[in-house]
Amino acid sequence: MQQADIIIKNGTILTLDSDNSIVENGFLCIRGDSISKIGPGNPTLFKAEKIIDAGGGLILPGLVNCHTHAAMSLFRGLADDLPLMEWLNNYIFPAESKMDAEFVYTGTLLALAEMIMSGTTTFCDMYLFADQVAKAARKAGVRCLVGEVLYDFPSPNYGPVEKGLEYTESLIQKWRNDPLVSIAVEPHSLFTCSPKLLTASNELALKYNVPLIIHVAETLTEVDEIKEKYGKTPVKHLDSLGLLGPHLIADHCVHLEDADIKTMAANGVNVVHNPESNMKLASGIAPVPQMLSQGLTVGLGTDGCASNNNLDLFSEMDTAAKLHKVNTFDPTVMDALSVLKMATVHGARVLGLQDVTGSLEVGKKADVIVIDTHKPHLTPMYNATSHLVYAARGSDVSHSIINGQPVMEDRKLLTLDITEIMARARETSIRVRSWLSF
Amino acid sequence: MQQADIIIKNGTILTLDSDNSIVENGFLCIRGDSISKIGPGNPTLFKAEKIIDAGGGLILPGLVNCHTHAAMSLFRGLADDLPLMEWLNNYIFPAESKMDAEFVYTGTLLALAEMIMSGTTTFCDMYLFADQVAKAARKAGVRCLVGEVLYDFPSPNYGPVEKGLEYTESLIQKWRNDPLVSIAVEPHSLFTCSPKLLTASNELALKYNVPLIIHVAETLTEVDEIKEKYGKTPVKHLDSLGLLGPHLIADHCVHLEDADIKTMAANGVNVVHNPESNMKLASGIAPVPQMLSQGLTVGLGTDGCASNNNLDLFSEMDTAAKLHKVNTFDPTVMDALSVLKMATVHGARVLGLQDVTGSLEVGKKADVIVIDTHKPHLTPMYNATSHLVYAARGSDVSHSIINGQPVMEDRKLLTLDITEIMARARETSIRVRSWLSF
Repeated sequence: MQQADIIIKNGTILTLDSDNSIVENGFLCIRGDSISKIGPGNPTLFKAEKIIDAGGGLILPGLVNCHTHAAMSLFRGLADDLPLMEWLNNYIFPAESKMDAEFVYTGTLLALAEMIMSGTTTFCDMYLFADQVAKAARKAGVRCLVGEVLYDFPSPNYGPVEKGLEYTESLIQKWRNDPLVSIAVEPHSLFTCSPKLLTASNELALKYNVPLIIHVAETLTEVDEIKEKYGKTPVKHLDSLGLLGPHLIADHCVHLEDADIKTMAANGVNVVHNPESNMKLASGIAPVPQMLSQGLTVGLGTDGCASNNNLDLFSEMDTAAKLHKVNTFDPTVMDALSVLKMATVHGARVLGLQDVTGSLEVGKKADVIVIDTHKPHLTPMYNATSHLVYAARGSDVSHSIINGQPVMEDRKLLTLDITEIMARARETSIRVRSWLSF
Repeated sequence: MQQADIIIKNGTILTLDSDNSIVENGFLCIRGDSISKIGPGNPTLFKAEKIIDAGGGLILPGLVNCHTHAAMSLFRGLADDLPLMEWLNNYIFPAESKMDAEFVYTGTLLALAEMIMSGTTTFCDMYLFADQVAKAARKAGVRCLVGEVLYDFPSPNYGPVEKGLEYTESLIQKWRNDPLVSIAVEPHSLFTCSPKLLTASNELALKYNVPLIIHVAETLTEVDEIKEKYGKTPVKHLDSLGLLGPHLIADHCVHLEDADIKTMAANGVNVVHNPESNMKLASGIAPVPQMLSQGLTVGLGTDGCASNNNLDLFSEMDTAAKLHKVNTFDPTVMDALSVLKMATVHGARVLGLQDVTGSLEVGKKADVIVIDTHKPHLTPMYNATSHLVYAARGSDVSHSIINGQPVMEDRKLLTLDITEIMARARETSIRVRSWLSF
């Protein structure tokens, strides 16, 4: 008998490996933080302290949320259905100017509870007080790539503009070698960051070999502004500054010209698609099928809760698959498997974590979720991939293991006290109301 | 002390009445099949056998699914991401040709379990073996408007074309005066029904004062075909046959000209919007904001599970709200309240059930659901309506009462044995595979 720490058995395993192998009625062994065995049938040659029976459900890699602002969970439903500038100027910016470390820690914990409970095991964050985001993720046991948002105005966290990169560098050094937390350099956007800040950000990212993350071409207004100011599209502006490369993660990319897509593909840029946020803010529909056909790697993100309003990647997959069909009048684009890959293995690749997570393969870290399919809306099951994209909800995730550590069993969170977190979130919402006087 | 049969207390009540009144921390009393009292605070002057504590959650009218083909739950995930004609000709039509009463009864029960568990208390169905649909709804205790699909080919249910109206008339007579089941006359579409069948259908509907339901302008192909054949748009074709009126429920209405919308509004036609199905089948985006601005009443539907792939109206509300924002580049259209009304009070109006259901008002039938908001993704709560549309999921519904009868408590179904239904659904799926030889 071979020893494992955890065995998950009695489920259909969607590996999302390079062959998209599916093991019907299989088992998966975890040893330490890694996957040690995947096989068909019963694990008769293996023993473990902990055995999780998937009950005939689905076993798959934990989902990868490639773009969010986790602590904005505390702004969920604060203001909807408004023109963008009214939303930003009257709600989001005033509230963010009052923000403190405690707010970000509480809001991130709340988001982490929601993410675990809807199957996300890795997330990429851009927000203020990024050290608090990392701490919260560490407490929850969730894998992440986080960074401090940088822009050309003073920050309630690090103060004057010139301190932003110093703060980011200190984060990189502090969290280096952490098993769960990675740090990125994160200038906010082309319209909030000077070429100088962008170039310095890029140099820092290259110096430490960490990702550079930025919002790109999210709205037409932004594109017009950049063209007006620099005489070129946002992508060409990035190119002229030397920022394009496989270390760059470009969020949104809603408004691209064909030449932009080609340039990004030629430079190996990674893209994050956030369909629900782009829809709710009326930003537009990103040309994802064209990006995929040009060979770009595209991951999926929920964006922050103020523009979605949830962190459920199952819902995001469903929307992504459908939105591009209706947008192109072609029901065959963005098929279920392509979308599931965006939310798993391709998402991991976007974040530079392709050797760590995103698929179930021996030697990779054990980031695994189990879906309970014994429910009316998942019965019968002709096709597991279709069910995951078009029928399942975040609430169907029964178990989650990250880096070999169980973080949820039978929908009970093991690393977070949600009653306490929700109480703190409600208290914080009273502060937010007072900031905005409503 | 006044006697009630059921009291629901300790929740925020969204009445969806004509003032959209919200009662913070209120209670609702049910006497027999009807709502007898709605008030603030604790129900100190009322007593009841059964008291449901909403736990600080939301109390709202049960949702109205204005268009589905319930038994297609047994085809969920059977075939996705295919060109429309391949999907229909190689999967749906061959399977439907083998269909029998047992299939429809089982599939409808499965759909009913899913609908109850995601907050739907009234649904409108169009399918084969409609008597089985009505029987299943009666067993589940779910309110419905159902009808037998009529078209110009033989039916596996009623046989030759000319028997369809006879069968429908027998249904009308059989279910007349039923407290939950109403019958409609349901010719399939303009491209599957001759003018003769359409006119006869309309006469039958008018004779019995029941709704006439038909798919209209779902795809561009259909519009082109009708224009080619009759020299006019589908709506003008309906108009010329005398079918337009407040008794008509037009499903989809994706491809309308401005004049069509005006004509429909002038005739008081009711519309059902099915955004997820229209997206998944790449049919197009219905001009809902224009319809609303012309005064049309628009309800929301999921369509069948083969083109969605679920019956969750919470997801449908979310998608409806977002899709039109991105389609019009206007984040203020289809605000949360407008969409919630489509899924409740306006949906009831579309089905002609405005005096029965769709809002919480004294004297209306007690069709009530409770949402458990004590969850990370619904915390904090600044705005209940926003939460329902943008953040809640069907799985957040904890209780459901229909016509005064509890059908779900703490997510346990009271009228259906889901274990047995799922077992029968799995057996039926084996038959489906054999029909399609895969």
